[in-house]
Amino acid sequence: KKSYNITLLPGDGIGPEVVSVAKQVLNLTASLEGIEFKYQEMPVGGAALDLTGVPLPEETLSVAKQSDAILLGAIGGYKWDANEKHLKPETGLLQLREGLGVFANLRPATVLPQLIDSSTLKREVAQGVDLMVVRELTGGIYFGKPRGFGKNENGDEIGFNTEVYATYEIDRIARVAFETARKRRGKLCSVDKANVLEASMLWRKRVTMMASEYPDVELTHMYVDNAAMQLIRDPKQFDTIVTNNIFGDILSDEASMLTGSIGMLPSASIGDSGPGLYEPIHGSAPDIAGQDKANPLATVLSVAMLLKYGLQEEAAAKRIENAVLETLDKGFRTGDLFSTGMKLVGCKEMGEQVLRSI
Amino acid sequence: KKSYNITLLPGDGIGPEVVSVAKQVLNLTASLEGIEFKYQEMPVGGAALDLTGVPLPEETLSVAKQSDAILLGAIGGYKWDANEKHLKPETGLLQLREGLGVFANLRPATVLPQLIDSSTLKREVAQGVDLMVVRELTGGIYFGKPRGFGKNENGDEIGFNTEVYATYEIDRIARVAFETARKRRGKLCSVDKANVLEASMLWRKRVTMMASEYPDVELTHMYVDNAAMQLIRDPKQFDTIVTNNIFGDILSDEASMLTGSIGMLPSASIGDSGPGLYEPIHGSAPDIAGQDKANPLATVLSVAMLLKYGLQEEAAAKRIENAVLETLDKGFRTGDLFSTGMKLVGCKEMGEQVLRSI
Ligand SMILES: CC(C)[C@H](C(=O)O)[C@@H](O)C(=O)O
Ligand SMILES: CC(C)[C@H](C(=O)O)[C@@H](O)C(=O)O
Repeated sequence: KKSYNITLLPGDGIGPEVVSVAKQVLNLTASLEGIEFKYQEMPVGGAALDLTGVPLPEETLSVAKQSDAILLGAIGGYKWDANEKHLKPETGLLQLREGLGVFANLRPATVLPQLIDSSTLKREVAQGVDLMVVRELTGGIYFGKPRGFGKNENGDEIGFNTEVYATYEIDRIARVAFETARKRRGKLCSVDKANVLEASMLWRKRVTMMASEYPDVELTHMYVDNAAMQLIRDPKQFDTIVTNNIFGDILSDEASMLTGSIGMLPSASIGDSGPGLYEPIHGSAPDIAGQDKANPLATVLSVAMLLKYGLQEEAAAKRIENAVLETLDKGFRTGDLFSTGMKLVGCKEMGEQVLRSI
Repeated sequence: KKSYNITLLPGDGIGPEVVSVAKQVLNLTASLEGIEFKYQEMPVGGAALDLTGVPLPEETLSVAKQSDAILLGAIGGYKWDANEKHLKPETGLLQLREGLGVFANLRPATVLPQLIDSSTLKREVAQGVDLMVVRELTGGIYFGKPRGFGKNENGDEIGFNTEVYATYEIDRIARVAFETARKRRGKLCSVDKANVLEASMLWRKRVTMMASEYPDVELTHMYVDNAAMQLIRDPKQFDTIVTNNIFGDILSDEASMLTGSIGMLPSASIGDSGPGLYEPIHGSAPDIAGQDKANPLATVLSVAMLLKYGLQEEAAAKRIENAVLETLDKGFRTGDLFSTGMKLVGCKEMGEQVLRSI
């Protein structure tokens, strides 16, 4: 019997609720697929701050590193918003990504037929949208040095950050993107600001160089401002998008909102070796935390990504994805996606319905 | 008789066509309002590269600086895309902004009832959208130093840029934004990435400090990834948005696409003193250049902004805005906005129709 070690990082806000549902889904799937999961639950983010004084305790990182895959709930909350940088919950997330070396963040944005009316886009524009943003996750302006505060020559206070990419960082994310595009519809759009930024010029040069290794993938380039427009004008033109950390942060959120159902969207963050980090793209939603109102499906679908990308358990992943679609077909909706004619359920009951469909 | 000196910078692609229409509009307005315009036409961008070898000749900048206002068409084209950085048309535009000191870029995005069906957003989401992005234009990662190419400690090639803001830069753009919001609906949303970037932390701190001077303006803060989502989820929540150069580049393009009619949108770039720079937000559209297909209305509306913000000729500005609306009411549309039942016209005829309505 195959056995996997999973690190659970429930985190803050609605994190614990949705992770608890996802764990039940993992357990049932395991018993049906003849595999086994062992869990270690560790603190991160605000929860870790309250418990240990730091947003990513060393032990959390070392347990995570030794496991086969990591499931994260959500991080952050008003309570810690005024904290200094090194004591912010978000800093724990950034340290986790860096510590795990998960440089590739895969964020699918798919419009499900069952949920198309939740999109603010016209039906004919939203229908059939199915794209994947491959975001660089451990480099660029998020981590670049020098950074900090100082004074300029006139004595004015300044705040500064460095956007920097090295060829090896661009090459490895480009490779993930080309491979991803190859397994999808064979179209890759690299997004940058090469008409202004040197970091983007190098990015464009290296991505272009790699294209010859992937003759079956059609590579295009787009400036980030134009990409922000094109996602709204005609999102169906995109298959796979690859971009840097900050542009990926913005564009993947924009793309996910096109689907109208960010409570449904999972993500995977992977590296060259070592375990991947799987998490819903939504935040910690402190306003509804603990009220059994959260939509657990993004986390459940993150578990499907974990099985597929992290453990190569494709059958188990498919089982979960199908169960989610079936649950939607039956009309079950949490508050975020509720509309008349549907059955309003809470987080726990949504979980039970998914279990039933599995 | 009041007389103004206007610098015309037609630039590249469709630039000359749309500027020529705008000039006719200026002339007719002048004769009706009892004012006078004198023009100097100067090269910039690709046109200047071909003529003089640089994208912003010194003479263009000095003529522009001595005038009362500057009207720019568009810049860039495939022909110069492979040029080195200092020989790109875009570099000419950046040098122009820096040389003029126009640190505040005002970009309205309004959904006109006549054009609401051009938006890819559902009617009920698009209806009534009326927002203004105030983008910082002469600082941040566009101009920050150090920048360039180099090697990291392992000998890998790197490309790097610096995102940097000084307090005086934040304060002056924040002031423009508060003043703008005060004249609009009194709501200001400052967009940053203060959960990650030091430059954003200083931004948020300074903007917050200024709020006490504007008790009539309601200030909120939003992370840039969330703003990219909220613009799609519910654009009507926004009145005035203030943000840095690169986030403003992305978000203002996103906002303009919400209206479905970027061929209609003007912009104004202003400084503390000296002439402002007025330009349509659309690009040079090299694929339709010289074919009398371009929509001149964004440039015509830029002339209205020039009159209003640059010359305090409010009546003349209003006259032009009304003429544009009347022309749309009559059903005239260029190809970008054409739909059945409307009257398809070229760039020149659209110009003539506006003149008729004036
Ligand atoms: C919480 C924040 C630091 C994070 C990011 O900017 O990467 C989040 O927005 C995300 O996209 O996962
Ligand atoms: C052409 C380019 C340099 C410019 C910018 O990025 O500022 C353009 O996108 C704009 O928004 O005016």
